[in-house]
Amino acid sequence: MIKIAVDVMGGDYAPSSVLKGIELSLQALPDCQIYAVGPQEICQSLASHERVKVISTEEVVRMEDSPHESLKKKRRASLFLGLDLLREGKAQSYVSAGNSGAVVAGSIFLLGRLKGVRRPAIATLLPTLKKPMVLIDAGANVDSKPYDLYQFGHMASLFLEKIWGRKNPKIALLSIGEEEGKGNQLVKRAHQLFLKSSLNYVGNIEGRDIYLGNVDVVVCDGFIGNICLKLSEGLAETILLMLREEVKKSFCSLLGLYLAKSALKNFKKKTDWREYGGAPLLGVKGNVIIAHGKSDALAIKNAILQAYKFAQINLWQRLEEAILAIPPEEENSEA
Amino acid sequence: MIKIAVDVMGGDYAPSSVLKGIELSLQALPDCQIYAVGPQEICQSLASHERVKVISTEEVVRMEDSPHESLKKKRRASLFLGLDLLREGKAQSYVSAGNSGAVVAGSIFLLGRLKGVRRPAIATLLPTLKKPMVLIDAGANVDSKPYDLYQFGHMASLFLEKIWGRKNPKIALLSIGEEEGKGNQLVKRAHQLFLKSSLNYVGNIEGRDIYLGNVDVVVCDGFIGNICLKLSEGLAETILLMLREEVKKSFCSLLGLYLAKSALKNFKKKTDWREYGGAPLLGVKGNVIIAHGKSDALAIKNAILQAYKFAQINLWQRLEEAILAIPPEEENSEA
Repeated sequence: MIKIAVDVMGGDYAPSSVLKGIELSLQALPDCQIYAVGPQEICQSLASHERVKVISTEEVVRMEDSPHESLKKKRRASLFLGLDLLREGKAQSYVSAGNSGAVVAGSIFLLGRLKGVRRPAIATLLPTLKKPMVLIDAGANVDSKPYDLYQFGHMASLFLEKIWGRKNPKIALLSIGEEEGKGNQLVKRAHQLFLKSSLNYVGNIEGRDIYLGNVDVVVCDGFIGNICLKLSEGLAETILLMLREEVKKSFCSLLGLYLAKSALKNFKKKTDWREYGGAPLLGVKGNVIIAHGKSDALAIKNAILQAYKFAQINLWQRLEEAILAIPPEEENSEA
Repeated sequence: MIKIAVDVMGGDYAPSSVLKGIELSLQALPDCQIYAVGPQEICQSLASHERVKVISTEEVVRMEDSPHESLKKKRRASLFLGLDLLREGKAQSYVSAGNSGAVVAGSIFLLGRLKGVRRPAIATLLPTLKKPMVLIDAGANVDSKPYDLYQFGHMASLFLEKIWGRKNPKIALLSIGEEEGKGNQLVKRAHQLFLKSSLNYVGNIEGRDIYLGNVDVVVCDGFIGNICLKLSEGLAETILLMLREEVKKSFCSLLGLYLAKSALKNFKKKTDWREYGGAPLLGVKGNVIIAHGKSDALAIKNAILQAYKFAQINLWQRLEEAILAIPPEEENSEA
């Protein structure tokens, strides 16, 4: 029986989205037990389920709370108690759609980093014209160092190999030109580290080419990664809105839209982040899945399915083994 | 008669795109003279036009050339000779779709920066759900300092007021959260400078909200700005491609697409970067327009129309006056 802890109070649409998502995941996973962490009265609807255990707490970390302040002052919040269950070995994976800064800070503080890892990073799966790829870091760190980017590349490569069975994933650095030597100081130095590595490093990738799907992993600092991710979501929504506005202007186009609606539906499903089940925080001693702040029940369910998969293969333990196997001389750069 | 210098050899589709673009602009602007800078035999088709003067040179800066190496070794390239025409006062504006790094480096070296400006920046107009907005810096600088971002905000604000008549433009800093205190070191420090300024500064903006059109100027470092710009172009293309692929799968959807094609056409025109006429390099002593590397004749024509407008209102001189009027105490941060 795999046990997964879920932060019932995390996310813009919590708790209802999370409660419903837990129900859906229990139907999908017959040998899974859920620790639902949140206020007793809110978790009431789940309490009667034989595979749910409610961990009751009244405290909640809000989206606008400072991660480090929360750790000090709201230590009994659902977001942190869920991490405690991981640390104590009671749960094998943890899902939260709450304040992602607090999940990152809490994971580092309560679980600790993997041996040899300086900064954990969020690995987000993104749809492309070909197969999905990983963007790392999607926002766990700002002001990363070159060696951090280098480790992000290693972690994402291992993640894709272990979880998705993708052989020898192609790694690229996000920059402003494909040519060597294009980029800021951070990227130029990280490039030198990647060149010497055993990874399947293919050089720089430009913003334009991310969604072509020619590489498996795009590595960047979390500040840029987070902006790229949100920009993509916002732009995709805007394009569909603008198209709809244009279509509304003529009856003929409206009819066209109606006829093409199954195609639009397929497209939406293919590009829907909710299908991708949240993003793992790689580099901490635990399987932590950060779900989108706007997660609905479907997104929460898919995040729990991911969490289940990570627990099945002991993701974090295997990452740690693999990271310890990276030759230490590659580490000799504080650049 | 306004005189505009054009780099005939700049851009992925040069020289044919540029030659055609010059012709189109001459038709649109009856009181404009063009200096076409490029090899005599290539400019042959334009030479007979009474309002074209060919400045002949064989040297060309390639897209892959290092900007600073080019300045040393290809000083007679069309890209730089065009800038000479500006410096000598023979032309009032300059357009190039060539190596943008070389245009930036050449402009700084040959024209000089405006008094008080530390780093010139590329200001790109972007379509949004509402009116177009400016993204600055779109790639002139990487590794900017907080005070640079602050000056970018000032320059873009002035540009929007002078050229587009937009009163009191709203300025925002691109970051990973709207809340004060979210962001990397660069953004946090720039935020403090903006707070004290006379600009209509509205705080941070997230990637998700850029295309909503709620602000007039989005300020960021050129590394991020360039990635955002290219990501947007690439994603928009990818979305349309994926939609088309889905639509092709059923006859019904295909028919729908056919019926909606006028709406699609309108949408494409509204979001077409070629309509926006290139991006000015703000902060140098000259009206320099950097056109998209993939410019076709239409994009070149629109860039020349912009260049014409900038010359009409003496853009760079007015920017310099306005920048000198910023209280010097605001400058006291090397942060």
